[in-house]
Order: sequence, then structure tokens, then C-alpha cells
Amino acid sequence: MDLTKLVTSIDTVWTLVATALVFFMQAGFAMVETGLTRAKNAGNIIMKNLMDFVIGSLIFWVLGFGIMFGGDIGGVIGMPDLFTRGNYEHLGLGIPLEAFLIFQTVFCATAATIVSGAMAERTKFKSYLLYSFIISAVIYPIAGHWIWGGGWLSKLGFHDFAGSTVVHSIGGWAALIGAWTIGPRIGKYSKNGKPQAIPGHNITLGALGVFILWFGWFGFNPGSTLSGTNINAISHIFVTTNLSGAAATLVTLMITWLRYKKPDVSMTLNGSLAGLVAVTAGCDLVTPTGAVIIGILSGVVVVFGIEFVDKALKIDDPVGAIGVHCCNGVFGTLCVGLFAASGENLGLFYGGGFKLLGIQLLGIIAVAGWTIVTTVIMFKTMKTTVGLRVSSEEEITGLDLTEHGIDSYADFGPKRTVSFKADPIDLHL
Amino acid sequence: MDLTKLVTSIDTVWTLVATALVFFMQAGFAMVETGLTRAKNAGNIIMKNLMDFVIGSLIFWVLGFGIMFGGDIGGVIGMPDLFTRGNYEHLGLGIPLEAFLIFQTVFCATAATIVSGAMAERTKFKSYLLYSFIISAVIYPIAGHWIWGGGWLSKLGFHDFAGSTVVHSIGGWAALIGAWTIGPRIGKYSKNGKPQAIPGHNITLGALGVFILWFGWFGFNPGSTLSGTNINAISHIFVTTNLSGAAATLVTLMITWLRYKKPDVSMTLNGSLAGLVAVTAGCDLVTPTGAVIIGILSGVVVVFGIEFVDKALKIDDPVGAIGVHCCNGVFGTLCVGLFAASGENLGLFYGGGFKLLGIQLLGIIAVAGWTIVTTVIMFKTMKTTVGLRVSSEEEITGLDLTEHGIDSYADFGPKRTVSFKADPIDLHL
Amino acid sequence: MDLTKLVTSIDTVWTLVATALVFFMQAGFAMVETGLTRAKNAGNIIMKNLMDFVIGSLIFWVLGFGIMFGGDIGGVIGMPDLFTRGNYEHLGLGIPLEAFLIFQTVFCATAATIVSGAMAERTKFKSYLLYSFIISAVIYPIAGHWIWGGGWLSKLGFHDFAGSTVVHSIGGWAALIGAWTIGPRIGKYSKNGKPQAIPGHNITLGALGVFILWFGWFGFNPGSTLSGTNINAISHIFVTTNLSGAAATLVTLMITWLRYKKPDVSMTLNGSLAGLVAVTAGCDLVTPTGAVIIGILSGVVVVFGIEFVDKALKIDDPVGAIGVHCCNGVFGTLCVGLFAASGENLGLFYGGGFKLLGIQLLGIIAVAGWTIVTTVIMFKTMKTTVGLRVSSEEEITGLDLTEHGIDSYADFGPKRTVSFKADPIDLHL
Repeated sequence: MDLTKLVTSIDTVWTLVATALVFFMQAGFAMVETGLTRAKNAGNIIMKNLMDFVIGSLIFWVLGFGIMFGGDIGGVIGMPDLFTRGNYEHLGLGIPLEAFLIFQTVFCATAATIVSGAMAERTKFKSYLLYSFIISAVIYPIAGHWIWGGGWLSKLGFHDFAGSTVVHSIGGWAALIGAWTIGPRIGKYSKNGKPQAIPGHNITLGALGVFILWFGWFGFNPGSTLSGTNINAISHIFVTTNLSGAAATLVTLMITWLRYKKPDVSMTLNGSLAGLVAVTAGCDLVTPTGAVIIGILSGVVVVFGIEFVDKALKIDDPVGAIGVHCCNGVFGTLCVGLFAASGENLGLFYGGGFKLLGIQLLGIIAVAGWTIVTTVIMFKTMKTTVGLRVSSEEEITGLDLTEHGIDSYADFGPKRTVSFKADPIDLHL
Repeated sequence: MDLTKLVTSIDTVWTLVATALVFFMQAGFAMVETGLTRAKNAGNIIMKNLMDFVIGSLIFWVLGFGIMFGGDIGGVIGMPDLFTRGNYEHLGLGIPLEAFLIFQTVFCATAATIVSGAMAERTKFKSYLLYSFIISAVIYPIAGHWIWGGGWLSKLGFHDFAGSTVVHSIGGWAALIGAWTIGPRIGKYSKNGKPQAIPGHNITLGALGVFILWFGWFGFNPGSTLSGTNINAISHIFVTTNLSGAAATLVTLMITWLRYKKPDVSMTLNGSLAGLVAVTAGCDLVTPTGAVIIGILSGVVVVFGIEFVDKALKIDDPVGAIGVHCCNGVFGTLCVGLFAASGENLGLFYGGGFKLLGIQLLGIIAVAGWTIVTTVIMFKTMKTTVGLRVSSEEEITGLDLTEHGIDSYADFGPKRTVSFKADPIDLHL
Repeated sequence: MDLTKLVTSIDTVWTLVATALVFFMQAGFAMVETGLTRAKNAGNIIMKNLMDFVIGSLIFWVLGFGIMFGGDIGGVIGMPDLFTRGNYEHLGLGIPLEAFLIFQTVFCATAATIVSGAMAERTKFKSYLLYSFIISAVIYPIAGHWIWGGGWLSKLGFHDFAGSTVVHSIGGWAALIGAWTIGPRIGKYSKNGKPQAIPGHNITLGALGVFILWFGWFGFNPGSTLSGTNINAISHIFVTTNLSGAAATLVTLMITWLRYKKPDVSMTLNGSLAGLVAVTAGCDLVTPTGAVIIGILSGVVVVFGIEFVDKALKIDDPVGAIGVHCCNGVFGTLCVGLFAASGENLGLFYGGGFKLLGIQLLGIIAVAGWTIVTTVIMFKTMKTTVGLRVSSEEEITGLDLTEHGIDSYADFGPKRTVSFKADPIDLHL
């Protein structure tokens, strides 16, 4: 065995360990989304999380991978390649194709799973499966091609290292359109339009989910080097990722403390995710100090982003996914244009002028446009055909019972059982 | 440091990371088994999971490892080697012996822990500890020797890459015999023999367990190369493992949707495990397409396997462990004979004829025979001596209170408390 | 790329994977502490766990790292280095500085998080944040410098491989002083001083936490080599770590079975942690047999340690953190002096005489003295200024509602709700 083979081995081991960690983020999303919603929908939301990974894994292999990474056609799309049997020498990979395939598969599934939280507690299971199929087969791979597959944005110098835009903003925009199309949960807005808090049923599991996601991010960001021999990069990305997550958490805590008089638990948990999302685009290029600044700002963005969605847009996002993934996916991508301290183009605050910022903005708008247009068509079509939303009675009873015939907490008591019956006062109808 | 040393380093790092992941599967089993059983037995089942790992870790080091990997005696057993102090040069390991020992330890513990689910909610704690000791000391290592320790089946060319037979079918057969010997839980079968559903108390944790197990499987299967420099193999195994798990999940979901009118949550979760178990034997030799086919078929096997055990055999397996690990351990091992697309002997569908299929069948039967005979003797002896089952009163009250003096959910309410008292209607006596 | 670069790559990959695992221990601590305390304080304890990681991450980068690893000043403290921008060539690291920084960051946060359990259910959130800041900025880094940063204890030959003293005993002593200063929870001791059991609200999650911690320990101990090419060491440490944890678990189970007539769940879970804590100091130097003996003894230490704190000292430690981390951190450090079978100085039982034992004892006393003095000053000052403890009314109502305005289990029933009201009988006032 020669030196080159050893380099490849270290890079492959690194990528595969990262793949496992990113896969585990599915568990994190499942716990966050279940914990922050009601007990009567726990099994349903879990199943949506499981199934978008399952469907994503299959369809990305069947179709999506080729579209994203196949030979570039006009900068817009990769050459479709059913069952990923083609030649990908043009990628110049330093690791086996199958290692790259599985790493990209778990990324695709992460984008898909963001939506389930925003549309929780009212989306038909069948329709959710259909959505999962479409985003993993087409929407994500095409935009992904532009940025990571050698498409037009990558040629312009758009920088989205580990996917603030590719993964989080695509998931986030789809979440926004989905939650807007399907409308708020029964009881979420009072007659005069005031948002009502509908508390989650298990904050402990929600927090566990955030810890799991943070853990998985140590695969998501440093794993995106696809290289364990690039030791300065992977070490640096560990530091910037962690600092941004930490700073955002602290800032979110402080803002909620000031605004709501008490340090808010679920908002602070979302603050952690916000900081991790925001630093994802530029984790390789920003300094530790830059990462802390990004974290601080993302803490501000997530609190006001979630409030804006909730109060101004009156879009009901039960877990705050839009504020976390859409707002901070966009914001983090923009931050590369401000704080990039190394790389081909420097950020505005590091003497690079507005060039990179402009490119980042263009990429943000392009991906937003693409995702909004396609998901509007998708969700609107679904709404008028197969239907997007369960009946009011099903929603009030809970999706666990009506969609799956189960009670996820069969041994636990009456308060929850009562909420299975329509109670107009509790539900703020 | 020379090149060879570096290869060894990469291989050791890989094996140890995989070891950690496989260890973590213990948490997955614990969550699946707890989540799918009742709240009144939660602490008890958790303790059984913890203790089989603990006892397995100790006894495998003291005795089991030598029996499994010591110098071959007649193809049947390895040279016993108390406290693993002997010479294992005959294994030709590319990694330190202690790395191999700990990797094999966590595998042994995985086999042991499968049984706790099938025998849940009625097995005496003391007897379960005794069972753990025996399977880890003798039953698993001897059959393991035949296949992985240089014994007679390995010499025939039997292929069980990561343990569909060695780990899952041994655990699965023991689970079948254990659940059969101990009899069904009170209330499981009505007077006319119709099975009654006894719902688990926390589907969310059950699902978390499945996510953890899937995560751990990325150590279990690709780690079984014991080599991070074998980059094509480990990358390939990531892909086949994931595709089989995904396909099985989707198929299980669809079958339950058709058969029960609603997509079933716990069966689908078992579907994921079924696909992962089935691909374990041949994950290195089958193509991605082969893996998907194995996954699809394993989804069928698990649904009808669990139904068959439940309805035809009238064996009460609270979590479906027999359908998952026994049926799919056997089925997956057979699939190597059908779908092996590379290796010394090809599978039937890849032009290899019936040779490999025959060897696989022989291995399946031999291991089944060995495990059934030894566990029948073990469980029957235990039944007539120390006793296998708690009293009816203890069972109805719950094992947490009667075996450990605790209420695992002390702050939660009356419905569960009521079920602590014998209620003939609820319990279908 | 040359051979040296490859060695560094493997070492860096190893250290970073270990970092991720040690980070995940935060989730383990959060689950253990939440599970073993009451539902009404679940969100609060989760937040304390999250925030000590967050604050620790930031302040260790800003200040602590320099104090711990900066150029040695008189053996007592490192050269402070704001924002870790200095030169650390004197460390002679084989990995990038940022890899070392992030690895040390997650260790610092582990020490900090130990205290939240011992002071659970009654500590003001604000004051806890202040404590987190001080321990991560000053208390931990200074003692850490003595041992790992080139300070006076390291020069004497004090051996604490992965932190029985540096991490666990510092956290443990701080936990002891904190719990002693703040006083017991309302209802913990009856009028005649008899301790009352206050059961945790979710033993399942507590057990999940222990599994996560055990998993993380496979990063904590073998990762402390900072080297994946040191293959014999990392393999050996996996084995000793696991054996000690297993032996301690089994012994704790047996002791509780004998003493309390039933095998106790939460004590056994603490037994696992005790064995892991105790072997941490010497995991590299002891034999597998030595590790088993350490594990056995640590099982004894934890049971009687927890009882002693509870009954003799009358210090209320809701989760047993003092018995686990303080008693076994100290005990494990001492064990190096008894069981070290290799290294510069051998242990007493391996022919090394009392020299190493004496050094270990000196280090234990020095770190105990430092931590006790500083934390007494800190907690006493906090008590008389910002206040350390919530009001009795807040404590009885629960910190989730009073500190954060939430109910962590909003969908679950009345028993818990009733316990939100002061009930003199339930609370043993």
C-alpha cells in the first residue's frame, strides 16, 4: 500500500464516520419535533421523520444523486443516472464514489426532514410521503447541483461549505411554504388573530434532540471536507461550529430573558440550532471570533424570525423550524460575504469588498426562488388533489389515533385523554 | 513509523470507532424494548439490558473469547483461555488483540440482549442474569467459533459477514425458545386463544431506539471489515446496509397499510430493524440493488413472521424480536446464497448455482439446532429449578415495583397506577 | 504528503472523533440528572446542562485555555491568553492547536456539568450560570494546569490520564460544597433527620443517560492519548475502561441486592458511572485484571459513598453525583498508585513501593484543597449576594414553572399537577 492509498483511507474513514453522525441527526430532528409538539401526535411525527429518511435514501440513490452530481448540463442540472451506476470521474473525488453517495444521501435526508416540524400536527401522512419523494428526487438535487454539483452558482464562486443554503434554507423555505399552505393548527390563533402558545409534550426529549443534533453537526460541518487529512480545516471547523452554537444559545437565552422576563427553554434550544445552522456556510472560512459574531447575530435572528413568522406572517410553525433553518440558513450564507477571512474571495469586513456578498445574495435569492416556486406548485397541487390536511376531527383527536390507530403513551393518564376530545376552551377555538 | 504501522493504525481506529457505535446499540435495544412494553416494567427491562452487557463483557473476557477464537479443536470449539491471556497469532489479526477483543465483546453482548425483549414483562430478574451468563460464556462463543473462529462452517465457506446468523439468529432462536418456555403474559391471549394487543408505553422512545440501532449498524456492518483501509468495502457496506434498512421500512409500512388499513408504527419500526438484520450477512457481497431486494423481502418476512409467531405459534413476543432477529437473521443468511455478487462463491441469482445456498442452509440449520437444543435445556432447567417466571401477582403489579421496589415514572398519574392493580377487563384474563 | 503528515492526520481524526463523543456526554448528564429528579424541574435541569456547556465553551476559549495550557508560571498557572491567540509550541502537540483546544473544551464542560445534578431542584438559574462561568474560567483551568498543563503536579509525576482528578474530582468537590452550601431540598430530611427518598420522574431516561455516558467514555479515555497511531494504548484503554465499568455495575447491583433486598436501579446506574470514573486516571497503566479490581472496589465506594453523603453528612445530592464523581474520582486516582502495572513509577501492588501512591495522594489533596477553598468562597459569596436558592414556594411549585414559565410535560396528567401544590404529607415537611 502506498502513501496515496493511505491518504484516501483516512479521508474515507473520516467521511464515513461523519456520515454516521449526520444520519444520527435524524434522531435529533425526531426528538426535537416530537418533544415540542403534543403527545397525541407523537407517533405520527416520528413516522414522518423516519419515512423521509427512508424515502430520501431510496430516491436519492435511484434518481437524485445523478441529478445533483451527474455531468453538468448547462450549469442547471446534472445528467440523470438511474440507480447511480454512471461514471463520476469529473467530480475528482479523493474517496470511493459509494462513500460520497452515502454522505450526500444523509445530507439530502436532512433537508427533507426539516419540513415535518413546521407542518406538524395537521398534515396527512400520505401527503407527507409524497412531499418527501418530490423534494429528495427533484427540488433538493437540482439546487444542490448549482452549488455542490458544479452548476452555475459554484462557477460564480458562491460559497456554502456545509449547506446553510443547500440543506437548511431549502428545507426552511419548503417549511415556510408548507406551513403557509396548510394553515395554522386549530386553536393556534384566537378570533382576533392573536397567536396562542400550544406547548410541547416533552421538553426533555426536545432538549435531547438538540444535543443529538449538535453532536451530529460535528459530522455535518467538518465532514464536509470529505477529508481527514485536511487536519487544519477539520480542527478549525470543530472550533467555529461549536463557538457559533454556544454564542447563539447564550444570546437567545438573554434575549428571551429580557423580552419575556424568564429565560425561555424551547427558544433557547432553537437558539443552539440557529447558531449551528448559521455557521454552516462559512465554518471553514471564518475565524473563531467571526464564528462567535455569527452566533450572536443568529441568536437575534432566530428570536425575531420566529416571532415574525408567528405574529406578523401568522404562519403556524409548531417547532420554530422556519426561524431556525430558513432565516438562519439565509443569514448564515450572507455572513460568508461579511466574515470570510480566507478563501478566494474575502468577506466585506475582511477587505474583500462587496463581491462575495453579492454572489452570496444572488445564490440565496436563486435558491429561495427555486424552492418557493416548486414547493408552492407542489403543496398547492397536493392541496387540491390528494389533500394536504387531515380533517378537523382528526386533528382534534390527534394523528396518532386517526392516522395510525395508536396511543403513543398508552399507560399514561387522563389529562391527555381529555385533550383527545374536542375541548373548545383548551384549544382556543 | 512505517507504512505498515500506518495501515494498522487506520484499521485500529476504524475498529474502535465501530466498537463504540456497536456498544451504543445497547442503548437502542434498551429504548426499543422499554418503549414497546408497559410503564410498570420499564426499569426492569432497562436493567436487563444493562446487565446482559455487563455480564457479557466480563464473562466473554474471562471465558468466551478463548472458546470462540482460541486455537481450533476439531472445528468445533476454540481452546479455552481464561482471562484472554493466550496467544492468538493464528488469527493473523491486522489490529491489536485488545482491539479485536473489545470489538467481539460488544458483538457478543448484542446477541445476548435480543432475548430480553421477547421475554419481557414476566421473566425473573435473577433468572435473566443466569441466562445472560450462559449465552455469553458458552452458547454464543461455540457457534461463533464455527463461523468466525476458524471452525467447521468457516472451512466450508459459510458466509456471515457481520452476523445475521452469529449474532441475530442466535439471539433470535434463544428469544423464541425463551418466550415459548416462559409462556405468554397474562392477558395476551383471550380464552379462545385470540391474541390481544398490549400497547407499549412510549412509542417515541421505541423510535429513538430504532434510530440509535440504525446509527450503531454503521459500526456493526462496516466495522466488521476490521479495516479502515479496505475503503471500497466499507463504503459499499454503508450503502448496502442503508438501502436494505430503507427498503424494508418502506415495504413494512405499505404492507401494514394494506393489511391493517393504517400504517402501523411499531411494525414499521421493526421493519427497519428487519432490513438491517437481513443485509448483515451479505452486506459486503451484494450489490446495492441486491440490498434493496433483500430489504423488500425482509419487510415481508418481518410482518408475516411476527404474525406467525403471535397467531399461529401463540408465542408472546412483546417487542417482535423473534420476527426481527430470528426470521430475518435466517432469511438474510440465506440471501447470501441467492444474491452474493462477488466473493469466492457466487449466489444462485448471480450464476453461482446452489453450492453457496446449500452451505448457507447448512449453517443456518446447524446454528439453529445448536441454539435450540442448548436453550431448551437451559430454560427448561431454569424453569424447574430457580424458576423462570415471576408470580401472577408480581406480573400484574409490575416488575419495577416487585423486583426493584421502584416506580419508574413516580410523578405520573393514575391511569398507570390503576393498571398496577389487577383489572380483569383491561388485562383480558 | 509524507509519513509524518499521515501520522498527524490519524491522530487528529482520532482526537476529533473523541471530541464529538465527549461532547455527547453532555446529553448523557442531562438525561441522568433529569431522569433522577422530579418532572417539575425537568426543563430547568436540562437548561443548566445546556448552559454550562455553552458558557464553558465560550469562556474556556476566551480565558481558560490560556490559564491551563499557556506558558507555565511557577508551576501554578499558565500564561493567560485572551481568545487563545498565543503560541503553544511548548506543548509539543502532534495535532493542530485547534483540535487540542476543542478536545480540552469538552473536557472542561464535563467538569462543570457534574455540579448541576448535586444542586438540582433548588438552585437559582442565574446563580448557576455564574457558577458555570467561574469554574470554567478559573477553578478548573488552574488545577488543570498543575496536572495537564505542565504545572507542579505533572513535574512530580502525578498521573491522571484522562481526568479522575482533573475532571471528576473537581466537579465532584464543587458538587459537594455546592450541595452542602445550598442545603437539602424541602422534604428530603424528616424532623428527626432521616433521609427520605424523592424518586426521579423518568428512570428510563436516566438509564439512557448512563448508556450515552458509557458511549462517550470511549472518547473520553482512549481519546486522551490524542493519538490514533498509539494503537496498543487506545485498544488497551477500551478494554480497561469497559471492564471497570462492567465490574462496578455488577458489584453495585449485588451490594444493593444484599443490603436493600432488591437490586436497585438508580444505584446500579450510578455503579456503572463509578467504575468508569475510577478507571479514568489509570486506564492506560492498569492491566485488565487491575481494571476489574478497580471496578469492583469502585462499586463498593459508590454505594457507601452515596449513603455516607446522604445519611452521615446529611447533604442532599439528588442524583448521587458526589458519590460517583468525587468519591470515585479520588479513589480512582489513588488506585493508580496501587495498580499501575507500567509507566515510569509502578503501583504498590506491582512492586513500585509507596512513591507513586504518595504522589497521587498529594495530588488528590492539593486539588481537593484548591477546589474546596475556591468553591466555598464562591458559593458562600453567591449565597449572601445574588442568592443561591430559590424561595420555598418556587421550590415546591417547581423550577420549570417559576424560573422558565413552562410545564415540561404539558399533556400529562394530574398527579404531577397536584405535586405542584405544596402537599405537606407527600413532601415530608
